[in-house]
Amino acid sequence: MGASLRDIARLAGVSVKTVSNVVNGYAHVSPATRAKVEHALSQLDYRPNLSARNLRRGRTGVIALALPELDAPYFAELSRFVIEAAAELRWLVVIEQTDGSLERERQILDGVRDHRVDGLILSPVAIGVDELAARTDDTALVLLGERIHDGPADHVAIDNVRAARDVTEHLIGLGRTRIAALGAQDNSASGTAPLRLAGYRQALAAHGLPETVAKVERYRRHEGAAAMAALLGHRPDAVFCFNDLLALGAMRTILSAGLRVPEDIALAGLDDIEDGRYSTPTLTTLAPDKAELARIAVDLLKRRIDGLPGHPPQETRAGYRLMARESTLGR
Amino acid sequence: MGASLRDIARLAGVSVKTVSNVVNGYAHVSPATRAKVEHALSQLDYRPNLSARNLRRGRTGVIALALPELDAPYFAELSRFVIEAAAELRWLVVIEQTDGSLERERQILDGVRDHRVDGLILSPVAIGVDELAARTDDTALVLLGERIHDGPADHVAIDNVRAARDVTEHLIGLGRTRIAALGAQDNSASGTAPLRLAGYRQALAAHGLPETVAKVERYRRHEGAAAMAALLGHRPDAVFCFNDLLALGAMRTILSAGLRVPEDIALAGLDDIEDGRYSTPTLTTLAPDKAELARIAVDLLKRRIDGLPGHPPQETRAGYRLMARESTLGR
Repeated sequence: MGASLRDIARLAGVSVKTVSNVVNGYAHVSPATRAKVEHALSQLDYRPNLSARNLRRGRTGVIALALPELDAPYFAELSRFVIEAAAELRWLVVIEQTDGSLERERQILDGVRDHRVDGLILSPVAIGVDELAARTDDTALVLLGERIHDGPADHVAIDNVRAARDVTEHLIGLGRTRIAALGAQDNSASGTAPLRLAGYRQALAAHGLPETVAKVERYRRHEGAAAMAALLGHRPDAVFCFNDLLALGAMRTILSAGLRVPEDIALAGLDDIEDGRYSTPTLTTLAPDKAELARIAVDLLKRRIDGLPGHPPQETRAGYRLMARESTLGR
Repeated sequence: MGASLRDIARLAGVSVKTVSNVVNGYAHVSPATRAKVEHALSQLDYRPNLSARNLRRGRTGVIALALPELDAPYFAELSRFVIEAAAELRWLVVIEQTDGSLERERQILDGVRDHRVDGLILSPVAIGVDELAARTDDTALVLLGERIHDGPADHVAIDNVRAARDVTEHLIGLGRTRIAALGAQDNSASGTAPLRLAGYRQALAAHGLPETVAKVERYRRHEGAAAMAALLGHRPDAVFCFNDLLALGAMRTILSAGLRVPEDIALAGLDDIEDGRYSTPTLTTLAPDKAELARIAVDLLKRRIDGLPGHPPQETRAGYRLMARESTLGR
């Protein structure tokens, strides 16, 4: 089971207390003694029991990342970056899936009181501002990727309204005039859908163009395929899908119907998942800076865990880029 | 911070020790007393400190899942199932990424001694049998998804040789005779590639057909696209790609070259990730039963954590199904 502090002390010729002071990084140890202890530590391949040490500090060294579903590529890609950013702090990341359900989001917000994690990064779908504000627990919390106006916790996201306007302006700039939106939602009060819809509408209004809006329940390929089938009757010449999965589903429907992308219908998504870079045609999309989103979320959480409970919640924006590809530009 | 045992005891009119006996599930408490305590617990919304309780048992209630990369859809889909299976045991799952590097796999195997996790499910790429067998640590370990013959730990995977043979037989059954394999690897001693290559060769040999083999370093779309470009000169009439990402990259190359799938080149992958169900054409693939893989891995780990250190390592197979779609059958 590895060397004990007693073994180290014996080898270094010092007291167990001195070894403990070195291992815990306390200052009042002379450089010579510290060197002796460190030599013994390395000779005996000593490993601190991080679990016990963290517990003494009231910490577990583990944070939770709660997101709708790991098998949606956007969240898998984002998780990759969160795990990498957390690893720099020697934090481990537990991943929890909410499936976008209010009950699961509540359970997870509640569950942080089980003390198994030091803090939570939550990508909320269903939970509202009021409920978050009424939270009595003070475990560190950062909201990631959905905008909750004047929210009760630190929050990082891209500017969804402006991003959606930029995508729509791109389609307008190509001369398209019957531009549909695919991805509005009935049940989303605080989520992304209303923000992206607002950006789409701003761009259309600026050019006096009419709107066509298709709703979905969830942002998955099969819903994009089904909603696109219904949209075909409206003969759009372009479709802005509110995420890439919806767009890839829609692309499948358009091509299966014998229509061409972009000649008959130009298509754009949002997320820049890898799939869209290899589809035929490749998918025009908007790329949120996922590495920046993840880094900011981890930094905000660290500040809260290190003890800034009194500070007002902070709103932070991450950057994005429009990636124009074959599905709007042609080959 | 929630109610303490003392608060509960006061409300229930019993001793703190009695409350503790109820909370910890000890038997020697009368039903009437238990009911009083449970009523008080629920009234005061008491939550046990799982972290402290687990620590007393020498447990953290957290396991680690180490895989090459979370942004490869196969691993994201598999992780989803592992998290779900672990949740049934109230375990949290930390995800670690190895990027397929030997050094990272060593670090993670080593890191379980930090005591922050109770056990590890590892999807190994680079590490060999000898090194695993030489491991001195006795933290619970289960290997997932790569076959390590006569390995030193419990292991679950599909039968990769038979699976690869089945895919190749499917292509042969369609009358294809110049069938290439895409996905062999130079550096993989213990991994999937040699097993899938063996299955491919068995099928060709049974029908007296010649082989063409393209190598890659990693199983990602861009490598599939590049390897397919090199293969085009060999004029294959079918390609078996060793995973779906390689196949989707290869599909992009074939279609970009103005060739048709499957009329000119039939294409099959392995993994059944969601992307291939919506590509045009849809992708023929082999679907490992990911839910079963995950469930078996978690069950094996639980048995080890609960204390079967002396038992010999167990080899378990999960099922799979061939999913024939447009990329081989046509539309």
